[in-house]
Amino acid sequence: MIGIGLIGYGYWGPNLARNFAAHPECRIAAVCEQDSDRAERAAQAYPDAKITGDYRTLIEHADVDFVAIATPTSTHYQFARDALLAGKDTLVEKPLTTTVAEARELVDLAAERERILAVDHTFLYTGAVQKVKEVVDSGALGDILYIDSVRINLGLFQHDVNVIYDLAPHDLAIAFHILDAEPTAVQALGACHAGDNMENVAYLHLEFGNNVIAHFHLNWLSPVKIRKMLIGGSKKMLVYDDMEASEKVKIYDSGITLRSDDRDEANRAKVDYRTGDMWAPKLATQEALGAEIADLASCVQTRRQPLCDGRTGMRVVRILEACQTSIKNAGARVEPAAIP
Amino acid sequence: MIGIGLIGYGYWGPNLARNFAAHPECRIAAVCEQDSDRAERAAQAYPDAKITGDYRTLIEHADVDFVAIATPTSTHYQFARDALLAGKDTLVEKPLTTTVAEARELVDLAAERERILAVDHTFLYTGAVQKVKEVVDSGALGDILYIDSVRINLGLFQHDVNVIYDLAPHDLAIAFHILDAEPTAVQALGACHAGDNMENVAYLHLEFGNNVIAHFHLNWLSPVKIRKMLIGGSKKMLVYDDMEASEKVKIYDSGITLRSDDRDEANRAKVDYRTGDMWAPKLATQEALGAEIADLASCVQTRRQPLCDGRTGMRVVRILEACQTSIKNAGARVEPAAIP
Amino acid sequence: MIGIGLIGYGYWGPNLARNFAAHPECRIAAVCEQDSDRAERAAQAYPDAKITGDYRTLIEHADVDFVAIATPTSTHYQFARDALLAGKDTLVEKPLTTTVAEARELVDLAAERERILAVDHTFLYTGAVQKVKEVVDSGALGDILYIDSVRINLGLFQHDVNVIYDLAPHDLAIAFHILDAEPTAVQALGACHAGDNMENVAYLHLEFGNNVIAHFHLNWLSPVKIRKMLIGGSKKMLVYDDMEASEKVKIYDSGITLRSDDRDEANRAKVDYRTGDMWAPKLATQEALGAEIADLASCVQTRRQPLCDGRTGMRVVRILEACQTSIKNAGARVEPAAIP
Amino acid sequence: MIGIGLIGYGYWGPNLARNFAAHPECRIAAVCEQDSDRAERAAQAYPDAKITGDYRTLIEHADVDFVAIATPTSTHYQFARDALLAGKDTLVEKPLTTTVAEARELVDLAAERERILAVDHTFLYTGAVQKVKEVVDSGALGDILYIDSVRINLGLFQHDVNVIYDLAPHDLAIAFHILDAEPTAVQALGACHAGDNMENVAYLHLEFGNNVIAHFHLNWLSPVKIRKMLIGGSKKMLVYDDMEASEKVKIYDSGITLRSDDRDEANRAKVDYRTGDMWAPKLATQEALGAEIADLASCVQTRRQPLCDGRTGMRVVRILEACQTSIKNAGARVEPAAIP
Repeated sequence: MIGIGLIGYGYWGPNLARNFAAHPECRIAAVCEQDSDRAERAAQAYPDAKITGDYRTLIEHADVDFVAIATPTSTHYQFARDALLAGKDTLVEKPLTTTVAEARELVDLAAERERILAVDHTFLYTGAVQKVKEVVDSGALGDILYIDSVRINLGLFQHDVNVIYDLAPHDLAIAFHILDAEPTAVQALGACHAGDNMENVAYLHLEFGNNVIAHFHLNWLSPVKIRKMLIGGSKKMLVYDDMEASEKVKIYDSGITLRSDDRDEANRAKVDYRTGDMWAPKLATQEALGAEIADLASCVQTRRQPLCDGRTGMRVVRILEACQTSIKNAGARVEPAAIP
Repeated sequence: MIGIGLIGYGYWGPNLARNFAAHPECRIAAVCEQDSDRAERAAQAYPDAKITGDYRTLIEHADVDFVAIATPTSTHYQFARDALLAGKDTLVEKPLTTTVAEARELVDLAAERERILAVDHTFLYTGAVQKVKEVVDSGALGDILYIDSVRINLGLFQHDVNVIYDLAPHDLAIAFHILDAEPTAVQALGACHAGDNMENVAYLHLEFGNNVIAHFHLNWLSPVKIRKMLIGGSKKMLVYDDMEASEKVKIYDSGITLRSDDRDEANRAKVDYRTGDMWAPKLATQEALGAEIADLASCVQTRRQPLCDGRTGMRVVRILEACQTSIKNAGARVEPAAIP
Repeated sequence: MIGIGLIGYGYWGPNLARNFAAHPECRIAAVCEQDSDRAERAAQAYPDAKITGDYRTLIEHADVDFVAIATPTSTHYQFARDALLAGKDTLVEKPLTTTVAEARELVDLAAERERILAVDHTFLYTGAVQKVKEVVDSGALGDILYIDSVRINLGLFQHDVNVIYDLAPHDLAIAFHILDAEPTAVQALGACHAGDNMENVAYLHLEFGNNVIAHFHLNWLSPVKIRKMLIGGSKKMLVYDDMEASEKVKIYDSGITLRSDDRDEANRAKVDYRTGDMWAPKLATQEALGAEIADLASCVQTRRQPLCDGRTGMRVVRILEACQTSIKNAGARVEPAAIP
Repeated sequence: MIGIGLIGYGYWGPNLARNFAAHPECRIAAVCEQDSDRAERAAQAYPDAKITGDYRTLIEHADVDFVAIATPTSTHYQFARDALLAGKDTLVEKPLTTTVAEARELVDLAAERERILAVDHTFLYTGAVQKVKEVVDSGALGDILYIDSVRINLGLFQHDVNVIYDLAPHDLAIAFHILDAEPTAVQALGACHAGDNMENVAYLHLEFGNNVIAHFHLNWLSPVKIRKMLIGGSKKMLVYDDMEASEKVKIYDSGITLRSDDRDEANRAKVDYRTGDMWAPKLATQEALGAEIADLASCVQTRRQPLCDGRTGMRVVRILEACQTSIKNAGARVEPAAIP
């Protein structure tokens, strides 16, 4: 049995706990939570777990083999560093850290100590993203021309990060996974409406080279919840709408054809467009978090790195940092720094 | 009776013709169309109209009091100029011209000759936009914080203009109308996927001062048609979805409240958010184009300027031009030139 | 050119007129309308047509080759009979008549005089119904098990017919077309809420033998407009939603499998169900009414009967009459009378 | 603490267990499950609970104060009877029993022994149904004219009951709750497509007197999941769509007005219809099952009967039985027997 130590029993922590507890090879050994109401709820749900307000107690607990960190972003670095230093395998809520330098340190530490460092990009374990990946990899869409994602809702305003750090990790992880590529330049624009310096609405524009772009609309101040990603290909196009109860992924046999030989009077290529059938493949229906935890448990036992390891998390943080620089400079075009 | 001379019987021209013909004070006096098939269709539909391939013949036709121009954007300036010079009231398809300088000249010419110069921003005559305007003007939304519009579909690629000139005029006209303000700076990003230098996907970011922003996603290469505008206010929020059969406008009693007196340990204001009822007001169901033509006919008879006059059209072109400068400079922040 | 005489320029008449006028082989020769406002609108739209308030004048007009009847149901029989007697080809709005006896007489009269008798079941000319028919005929759905249709909206309460006569003709014509079969028994239930004896909500249950059923919900008192038909097959299932802007027809690779060899302790067959991909075929995008009128014009010229001839219309009336008997007898099971 | 004994850990049982366990006054004392895999899952989730394959062992267990029965319908009577005889408060999955006679016996037994007998009609505890009830009770809709419900999906075919017994309890409980009335007559039609005598598609038509009707479409063989209820009132209308993520309840200011004084030539009342605003009230967001269990725990402690007591469950069974008689008699009109 893998003893799980969970730091943070707020919004996401209970979901992690429930899924770890449901895994036959895992058990909740300890929970660290400073809020007394939440700590009490944890105690009731997991009567056999050690409940503590001090994360060091948890990390050092003999029954804890694996530390899961579900606390505000600004605390990730310290908690993960100490967990790795204590020799524990570690899962960190997304984004991994606030800066690339911190992420780099955690990745190196995990490598040095031969510990697993995982980042909780749960979306990569959904049946929908797996199907999108499979369709893109099959070449059915042709060359990818653009990705456009809208991820907006009336959101939990966070105190230590802006809407980019909160929501963009999802889109970045999905885009990297699908495109198997990383942006060469970013531009970010937005606004702060809550009386502080934290953007609550942001637009990210990413260049992937070769005329491929991605654009994300991130917003905590939308009256409606939208989770919709378009992927335009040279042959077909795909819509992934996570708010659909079923049929989350639709592939449209629609596109354009350049008739370069049939030039008009101004010597311009003509563009034909065509619409065709639509196809919504059946998706695997597993709970994503359950699949992720199964992957993690297997990693712990076989000592391999998981689908979303520290490097994946670091690549996401690299772009977050570049976007942060851009948005504080009025959308200036920023080329992400090479990872040290 | 007002004799209508219509230049261009392609995609939009027949709609204009049908609505003019249905107005009791208007009749189709002449149609100019160079394509022989289209000319024949015009002749069949309006057997009493003069059909010609030469726009000068139409402009100079004695029965033509009012010239309606529904041709590619690059031709608007010449046709409208000549129509005004011939003393005819004139309606020009959006956008009015390609450049502000051209628009300026037409506006001045219309003023000088005391002719009506109208621009066909049909959306302003829809029941939906009228209701949005009414709601915003009532103050129900509080201060407007942002406008976000998505206007995408698998589009008719145009040869003489990019997707900004094709689709942004709608959003610009609506935004100016609602906000009663114009952008102080713009940034535009996009990509060209059709082997030419014409953007088929574009993102416009507009600053209106005082932290108010607007953002438009314009795309000819989307497998799905979306026409959705969000308006975030400090008190309430509005969604205008033009693809809804009914209930195009929804007002959400949702928003955030700053609790500035209840600062947390880091001395930051807390943000509460609340969700409440949703309300979809009944909309006037008139056909917008019919309402616009009724307005134009009344203008002709009373010699007043219409809701969308040349100045409105010029203001739209001014921002289009600034966006064009920005998109050709990798999204550089561009402050629109003062109108000369 | 075929001279069209249109009786009735109310709700549907103008649509018929516009589509006839747009056909290169047809022209509006005469319009009969008793309401003076409507007559004036007809005169303005068709300045060359004879406008009259007396249907006999229209029928006897020398320029009228083809009479189109778009008047309340109770008048169809008389107008169509007189048109056929006058030797004119005739199109009658659905339903053809109120009773089978009347329908029989018109069908016989048309045969005797070798005139075309068409019924305006426009839906059969839509790309959606054509595709549904094609899919069903291909055998892709397996055996049809049931059809369920919901056709409801806040409706124009009619004075001379109940909601069954108003809305069921659509579903009946579509069901007969798809199944190539007619009901062996019907049961109808409903209610009258408008202070008269006219049902404004009705439910029809049709038996087609061999355990195949169809059920229609018809309602003039629904706050929302729904036009949704489910077709359950033994292999796949289909949803035809006419309110969808695109993707009106969806085929689901879902169904049940009987495992008759794997009986449980109670010796009952086990039922497995499976869900699979969904597929939305591209539909022809013609305007249905235009396609219908093209078919009619071709029929007039080649002297063949149209897709929806008098016999089709009569079969629909036969079931309407049986449903009427049932609904006035508390849903009693009624076997439709053999057509005399 | 209330010791919960749960009989049946299949589809619904784990949900009951989880919600009981989350209640501060309840604990899972015992689980009865014959399937060994499920029993093991129960043991892992509730390590302190007694796991048994014999329901008598559970019922007689000293730590069990409250028996929750989540087994196939045909077993409810026996298990509930024995639980009540053993002096335990009891919750039974819906429907309470197969026959009214059995339900009557349980209700009498509970009264005699002063035990709580609850039926798990969870929908009555949803924010949506509570809001519908509140709106109807306020009189905002005017007189209720009809209820129409569609409750269909690709369903778990059950072995011991048909689709009526599976799905209609939801609609019946909601309709009785909203209307505060019970049907005076029922008619049921349907079909069996799975090679047995169990209807998998059914239509229920209920008369409530005074021209008020309800109609339910129940279907295990639909490719799409629909949960939509329309309530037509004389003043306004309501749509309750349980598949909507938010805005499950919408009230339409739409309806008809009889102009009895303005009679037409045939001396019939004219009907005007009007459409107006739509309003979607905010709903309470509690989990319904959690709210139900809180109600039950409070009942146990205060010895009052719950919202859905045995009488409510018996009233539902009474109509199920009448529908069963009707559907086996080709939709014959059946007046439900008076409860003995």
